[in-house]
Amino acid sequence: MPYFDAASSAPLHPVARQALRASLDEGWADPARLYREGRRAALLLDAAREAAAEAVGCRPDELVFTPSGTHAVHAGVTGVLSGRRRVGRHAAVSAVEHSSVLHAVAAGGDVTEVPVDRFGAVSPDSYGEVLRTDTALACLQSANHEVGTEQPVAAVAEVCRSRGVPLLVDAAQSLGWGPVEGGWSVLTASAHKWGGPAGVGLLAVRKGVRFAPQGPADERESGRAPGFQNIPAVVAAAASLRAVRAEAAAEGRRLRELVDVIRARVPELVPDVEVVGDPLRRLPHLVTFSCLYVDGEALLHALDLADFSVNSGSSCTSGTLTPSHVLRAMGVLSEGNVRVSLPSGTTAAEVERYLEVLPGAVAGVRDRLGAPAAPPAAGTPAASPAAVGTLVVDAIGRRCPIPVIELAKVIGDVPVGGTVTVLADDEAARLDIPAWCAMRGQEYVGERPADHGAAFVVRRVS
Amino acid sequence: MPYFDAASSAPLHPVARQALRASLDEGWADPARLYREGRRAALLLDAAREAAAEAVGCRPDELVFTPSGTHAVHAGVTGVLSGRRRVGRHAAVSAVEHSSVLHAVAAGGDVTEVPVDRFGAVSPDSYGEVLRTDTALACLQSANHEVGTEQPVAAVAEVCRSRGVPLLVDAAQSLGWGPVEGGWSVLTASAHKWGGPAGVGLLAVRKGVRFAPQGPADERESGRAPGFQNIPAVVAAAASLRAVRAEAAAEGRRLRELVDVIRARVPELVPDVEVVGDPLRRLPHLVTFSCLYVDGEALLHALDLADFSVNSGSSCTSGTLTPSHVLRAMGVLSEGNVRVSLPSGTTAAEVERYLEVLPGAVAGVRDRLGAPAAPPAAGTPAASPAAVGTLVVDAIGRRCPIPVIELAKVIGDVPVGGTVTVLADDEAARLDIPAWCAMRGQEYVGERPADHGAAFVVRRVS
Repeated sequence: MPYFDAASSAPLHPVARQALRASLDEGWADPARLYREGRRAALLLDAAREAAAEAVGCRPDELVFTPSGTHAVHAGVTGVLSGRRRVGRHAAVSAVEHSSVLHAVAAGGDVTEVPVDRFGAVSPDSYGEVLRTDTALACLQSANHEVGTEQPVAAVAEVCRSRGVPLLVDAAQSLGWGPVEGGWSVLTASAHKWGGPAGVGLLAVRKGVRFAPQGPADERESGRAPGFQNIPAVVAAAASLRAVRAEAAAEGRRLRELVDVIRARVPELVPDVEVVGDPLRRLPHLVTFSCLYVDGEALLHALDLADFSVNSGSSCTSGTLTPSHVLRAMGVLSEGNVRVSLPSGTTAAEVERYLEVLPGAVAGVRDRLGAPAAPPAAGTPAASPAAVGTLVVDAIGRRCPIPVIELAKVIGDVPVGGTVTVLADDEAARLDIPAWCAMRGQEYVGERPADHGAAFVVRRVS
Repeated sequence: MPYFDAASSAPLHPVARQALRASLDEGWADPARLYREGRRAALLLDAAREAAAEAVGCRPDELVFTPSGTHAVHAGVTGVLSGRRRVGRHAAVSAVEHSSVLHAVAAGGDVTEVPVDRFGAVSPDSYGEVLRTDTALACLQSANHEVGTEQPVAAVAEVCRSRGVPLLVDAAQSLGWGPVEGGWSVLTASAHKWGGPAGVGLLAVRKGVRFAPQGPADERESGRAPGFQNIPAVVAAAASLRAVRAEAAAEGRRLRELVDVIRARVPELVPDVEVVGDPLRRLPHLVTFSCLYVDGEALLHALDLADFSVNSGSSCTSGTLTPSHVLRAMGVLSEGNVRVSLPSGTTAAEVERYLEVLPGAVAGVRDRLGAPAAPPAAGTPAASPAAVGTLVVDAIGRRCPIPVIELAKVIGDVPVGGTVTVLADDEAARLDIPAWCAMRGQEYVGERPADHGAAFVVRRVS
């Protein structure tokens, strides 16, 4: 039963399981106590901190353990924003950060989102453009969690350093593959992403960074992470980080080749697919693509029935009815979105079977939705401009991918030069109608307000 | 090697270990995902929530899992204070709450500490006296973590209910022994206190309590506890809570008798000991006493060498050089303080051996400190008031228990009616000099400021 959603949570690494079991007997006491059970727990905690700090590339006294990656991000962001309150309240973050980063900076102050290119990457120059004299903090992920694109962290860190702004790097998706290069100031990570147990995040704060922990005072973890430490989990996290790092070069090469197979073959096997994210500067194990005229939740369900567990950034699977902010920032198709993230040990045979199953799963969803099978035949221009009308499709109240399907169904009914106006109130339409136009070579004219939603205008040009 | 500090952290219960190991294979995936690994994780999480809610005595949708008891307290306190901001910023808490509660209310607003009696208990009337029209929150522990005294939670809850103020009950020390009675509004607890794993706290918020979670937004756990859930630990916490509850009546009776033995025999075996806390309305497994002329850290070390692990509220073991705020609020001796909290399964033989070891350990510490062996012989009054002088002892810069030892050494040198003035800058002196007077039947006159500290005046009356 292949599980292809390692980017959400990786199965527990055997070393993590072993370390967790072994330390349950030694690590349950309070490491702040002076008696032998406490001293034993403290020794385990110290050793785990040394091992994790070495993997991060920082000093042990710069690293604290938090109860999750989310806690590490919240504590890191709020700690720097408060520590540098005299500088200002402005934060610069990429538009494709994890929601924990976006929520943390939103709670703190004035935020500028740095745009990304179509691959999902920022440019160091664009950070240079948004940093201000009142910028307290910049944030950039090491690699994107939805599309796998690696960010130019070292170059952005250099820009930030030259402007005196600390850079927080969310390394949740990449830390298992290697240390984050460059002069970052704060780094966060999450153990269950690399095969460690749940319940452990890492927060590294370089010496010299002004940092004021928020929330009620607590003496644990240098005052930066309140609450009784979960030492067996921390030991398992550190041991498994060391273990996955030892395997990272070889396993990364192997999974990179499997992902290259998926990237190349999916567009051959499935019509109307857009593979997104950088093909080269990317995480080894992750690939994302979107399928026109497909309901993401229905596709996930079909794949689950075929024993494949994957994730989607489509709006219909998010519970909030909005498409992934990452896909939106990249300006790519969001409907029928599938993220495949291979855990360590995934075999070529599993990937092959996935590629056998996927085309039928997509076709089945498209059939049930009544998606058009092929683009319309090349049209002839209207006899005269006066003969060009506009056709209006009312998709108010219909969810992704229906508005795009309705558009595709009627585009052949207007002459070349004519327009189709789609009335829709689904958030995904704003992203997916322009994306459809780009894929189909039609012209996206624009959007205007309409009763209960918006009117999206498309001109037929071929 | 008897471990007698269950109130800090209990050894992992066998049921917790078993549940943790069993759920590592099923509980690592994201419970928010729709594929089978996610559904399995969600089922485990739901079942754990139902079991824990039943033990707490609330609805499953009123209960969330936090990463620790400290997180539960912080989230509970800040959530109610923010949710009731329109009412005011005032909080009423007992003076003997756990530091996590005191720090959380201190971060929030205007705090009134409700005093306790010499046993460490509040009276419901005193809550009634401090509640105001702008009181947003009242807090009361179910039982004290340092001296074991049970609080009149149900009666205080009734007072709070009649005044429209929600009561948060910190049940960290008692939840394994039974549910908290009465109409509490918010309840917090910590799994590693009952033999569950580290990394799990409980936060129950009754329907109808105005509650506004603080910190960056996060969709997990009803928005009340951010971060990826630690499902194996949550499953182990719920399973072990059920297990300890099944054993609670019998094991509680057994440990209560062992504690009664300690309460009765320690004052017989060790001279100049004050057993503190309520002898009847108390946790079954916990007893605390203080030994005159003893350095708490040295005594803990001596007991550790004899293989007994206990804790102390003495200032010299706290790292902050202040005595326990609980002992201070009770007005009892803080020097040479020892808390014994028996884990489940403690044997009568272990307690007997402890009682054999303790007198020698105390005597050894007293010898090394040069403590006076006995009170001075009954003195004769001075011939005339004019003959009454005062003797000054300079203990500036000397730590607990030295100022009290110096006082005891010279009290016999002044005539009855004469005074000894102790100059001291150790925080514990303020508590321990009056406590010594009470134990020795001398008169504590009072305290006045002095260079570099305070002058504590004692009159010899016998």
